[in-house]
Amino acid sequence: MEEDTMVQESLVLYGFWRSIASFRVRVALRLKGLSWEERPVNLMQGAQFTPDFDSVNPAHTLPVLQGPGFSHAQSLAILEFLEERWPDPALLPRDPDSRARARRLCLLTVADAHPLITPRVRHHLARNFAATEPQIAEWARHFLAEGARSYEALLAAEPPSPFINGATPGLADICLASHTVACGLFSLALDPWPTLNRLATACMALPAFADAHPFRQPDAPPASG
Amino acid sequence: MEEDTMVQESLVLYGFWRSIASFRVRVALRLKGLSWEERPVNLMQGAQFTPDFDSVNPAHTLPVLQGPGFSHAQSLAILEFLEERWPDPALLPRDPDSRARARRLCLLTVADAHPLITPRVRHHLARNFAATEPQIAEWARHFLAEGARSYEALLAAEPPSPFINGATPGLADICLASHTVACGLFSLALDPWPTLNRLATACMALPAFADAHPFRQPDAPPASG
Repeated sequence: MEEDTMVQESLVLYGFWRSIASFRVRVALRLKGLSWEERPVNLMQGAQFTPDFDSVNPAHTLPVLQGPGFSHAQSLAILEFLEERWPDPALLPRDPDSRARARRLCLLTVADAHPLITPRVRHHLARNFAATEPQIAEWARHFLAEGARSYEALLAAEPPSPFINGATPGLADICLASHTVACGLFSLALDPWPTLNRLATACMALPAFADAHPFRQPDAPPASG
Repeated sequence: MEEDTMVQESLVLYGFWRSIASFRVRVALRLKGLSWEERPVNLMQGAQFTPDFDSVNPAHTLPVLQGPGFSHAQSLAILEFLEERWPDPALLPRDPDSRARARRLCLLTVADAHPLITPRVRHHLARNFAATEPQIAEWARHFLAEGARSYEALLAAEPPSPFINGATPGLADICLASHTVACGLFSLALDPWPTLNRLATACMALPAFADAHPFRQPDAPPASG
């Protein structure tokens, strides 16, 4: 790869320690061997709504990855971008059917479970339905358990391999691991879903995943973890 | 294309008239010039939870596209699959930055707005927070308006072209149009977002989009539209 012999272009990631979408991008950057500077945006204090961040992403979401001449948002769009721009090592299989399967597994959390547990939704529940903290946590666990059940149903019958992607992790593994990180944030144990648990454990044993965990981020409060 | 000179392989789409994710896949199939048989699964009556459908998609979501040797779910994964398997006409731009932008615009609704207004979420609000029908409709309009605002903020400053994708529509246009179809289902007028409105109107003027609309589906109740 041409990039390997050049000084890497500088990359900036706007993220937040607790954001599992930021987790996904951090893992992919590490698996691609890229370095980046991370700029924390405190989602829980509403920093995504300040004029400064509005100019970074007027949709007010994290993560945002910036580099020379580009500024991309939405974790799955960024993962696909990293895959196209830095193809080695490959994080998606080659044939269209296997790629569709990998993306389907990504979207189980990116499009089904994760959107339901974001701060804006939790705040909206509190504001509009007077939901208490325990009720909001229960809401999150309900939809995370639904997602976990779907992962298990889709993956349990497959021949065991270290990762969904095969011998090395790929985008589907990254998204699956992010789902289990969210389960951890809401104290949902993975015991009912042994295949999910096994795959997530294999991922989190790798430094690229472990170092991306919310509790390992510099902006995480000291009491985390 | 080799496919153009062959008898097209048979495709089956499990969908539902009201499902905007099914809408997205119908449009892409039409833009690719493919024909398919649609099998309705009544999401509002819980048909996605029957044993018959469990064997089609154990994650219990629509749409599912099946063909010889494949069964794919998640609308965005299916759109990407159609693009890879039948590349003409192209529904994504060629360079990684433009593709990342298109996918970001897809995910504004696929990963941000749409997941919040699905039947399972509306049922959960009713069951767990005793939400009334008007409150649930207000919930949907809130998150659809947030999505519409994001589309407007990202697209208003761009030079006007008939479609996001350029002279012809692409995946970002399909997803944007699906967002506005959802707005229509919840009686949210598009006037506050003129760029979104203009792009959606251009899409819905095309038969591929118009024929995919919920109210045009055979399984829609007669009073719809």
